[in-house]
Amino acid sequence: MAHETPVVTPSDLRDILGFTVSLARKAGALILEGSKAIHAPSAKDVGEKKNSVDLVTEYDVKVEDLVKKEIAAMYPNFKFIGEESYVAGQNELTDDPTFCVDPIDGTTNFVHGFPFVCISIGLIYHRRPALGVIYNPFLDHMYTAVRGQGAHLHTPSAPSQKLPLSSPRPLPSLSQALLAVEWGSDRTAPILDAKGGSFIKLAGDPSGSKGPAVAGGRMAHSLRSMGSAALNYAMVAQGGLDMEIGCWPWDICAGTVIAQEAGCLVSGDSHSKHDGDVAEAILTGRKYIVVRAIGDTETEKGKDAQKRLIREFYETVTEVDPL
Amino acid sequence: MAHETPVVTPSDLRDILGFTVSLARKAGALILEGSKAIHAPSAKDVGEKKNSVDLVTEYDVKVEDLVKKEIAAMYPNFKFIGEESYVAGQNELTDDPTFCVDPIDGTTNFVHGFPFVCISIGLIYHRRPALGVIYNPFLDHMYTAVRGQGAHLHTPSAPSQKLPLSSPRPLPSLSQALLAVEWGSDRTAPILDAKGGSFIKLAGDPSGSKGPAVAGGRMAHSLRSMGSAALNYAMVAQGGLDMEIGCWPWDICAGTVIAQEAGCLVSGDSHSKHDGDVAEAILTGRKYIVVRAIGDTETEKGKDAQKRLIREFYETVTEVDPL
Repeated sequence: MAHETPVVTPSDLRDILGFTVSLARKAGALILEGSKAIHAPSAKDVGEKKNSVDLVTEYDVKVEDLVKKEIAAMYPNFKFIGEESYVAGQNELTDDPTFCVDPIDGTTNFVHGFPFVCISIGLIYHRRPALGVIYNPFLDHMYTAVRGQGAHLHTPSAPSQKLPLSSPRPLPSLSQALLAVEWGSDRTAPILDAKGGSFIKLAGDPSGSKGPAVAGGRMAHSLRSMGSAALNYAMVAQGGLDMEIGCWPWDICAGTVIAQEAGCLVSGDSHSKHDGDVAEAILTGRKYIVVRAIGDTETEKGKDAQKRLIREFYETVTEVDPL
Repeated sequence: MAHETPVVTPSDLRDILGFTVSLARKAGALILEGSKAIHAPSAKDVGEKKNSVDLVTEYDVKVEDLVKKEIAAMYPNFKFIGEESYVAGQNELTDDPTFCVDPIDGTTNFVHGFPFVCISIGLIYHRRPALGVIYNPFLDHMYTAVRGQGAHLHTPSAPSQKLPLSSPRPLPSLSQALLAVEWGSDRTAPILDAKGGSFIKLAGDPSGSKGPAVAGGRMAHSLRSMGSAALNYAMVAQGGLDMEIGCWPWDICAGTVIAQEAGCLVSGDSHSKHDGDVAEAILTGRKYIVVRAIGDTETEKGKDAQKRLIREFYETVTEVDPL
């Protein structure tokens, strides 16, 4: 019998969201349990993956196993891509509904007890992110979105707030921006020199009025590094950060829906048309950039402002792979 | 009549803590009101202080005025130093109890709606920080400490947790560390080149095994930038970050007590003896560094580990003023 792509209606997506939120809370409880185990006086040293920067723990696998199992039980004909079980080249994207999961985004934070850690669960359908849930169990912050149905933040003190949290302010250039940048796990000289140099240009004062100028400097308001791409995407959706770069499908799949539903533009790298078309290449590990809602994003003026900022960004930085 | 230094007993400090916590909550409510006003659709553009990076709003002054007024009413014979009303050279430190206040630490975050913003209220007595309260109204996180009486974090879900939150893990070198670094407001080329170069050395891989080596690299686990020195201090006290640099008395006064009571070492710059003696020079704008509790900080071994990390840090970075 030929394979039939399961049909998922907008109403189905709302049901799936309920399931996913509940699953994210279960995963969050396991993440908190893991944090306690790691930080107990008797805790053994945690393992290493690529190097000491790229820490991973048994809980990364445990959480992915939990999520994978519950999804398989509830939606047996949906596909699954997870950070831990991903094998390059073996996860061809199809039209099928496909869960895309980062069990613990921010593993370095997790190991250190720095409370910016989340589980990120996205659903891709017909090759596009259609649903996203990002949950930080340490702060009990739950971000949710369904394509076409808006994005929301749920906290203990504010059960449901629409994103962005406030009316989007203008953002004429990078000089007005608060940018998320991350140091990443590749610490070789060429990568760090390119990154460090880019960060200096983003922050630097080109005017020379206060002292020696930084040539090509953009004088951004500042740079922030939280160590979780998914939470950075969520923060851009919220409106608290203006721009962020993400790399991997599992850390940006959920964030992409949340961001797009909050009026953000999610775009490919400098070679793309900045048209917000994300999904076709989402499994290739290409870089994606997200910029927050600016003014009325329903209008061409708002969209043009977003595209202009992305161009300004790529004119400023030295692109490295991985960024 | 000669001036008599008011006497403040440990029991008085507990009463003052109650007052200060209540005051921090009032200030927090005003900060939230300010955030709403700034992000309302009708909000006017915010003012500028030194440059576009160093944003400040009318609420910075409003909050300081509120705090100053309530302190004057409750403790009329205590002195007051605030970021907004500070005049260099005019705030000589005495033995008198002196409140030291940063009304809004993280003003850039405040302007952008990035929810890492706090009020920091410290009390200096006999030239040493004796009491500290740091409150982030966006996350409703309240950090408190009284000298000799421990440090605590109060959140809606966990009303009172002793700091550090978990038993301090070993930290043999910077290569195991998660470090807080900030880009600051001086964006001229010499400052940014020194900072950027220092950050690259802190993050860089000196081994050459994965690609070209970073000479003198320390390969720290990663670098984080949250944009609030006071919250960074609080996070080091909590154990979620390993080290942070702070510059101004108002942003580190409260943090110093919270950090010290959580077993952290707070020390002067590279020329100091790293002996934890903070207060004498706290008004001179010298740099202070804080390193979290390591192992048993009551023992010489734990203290030596902290001092060794501070030395390693200063051997790695290029010192700039301001850092």
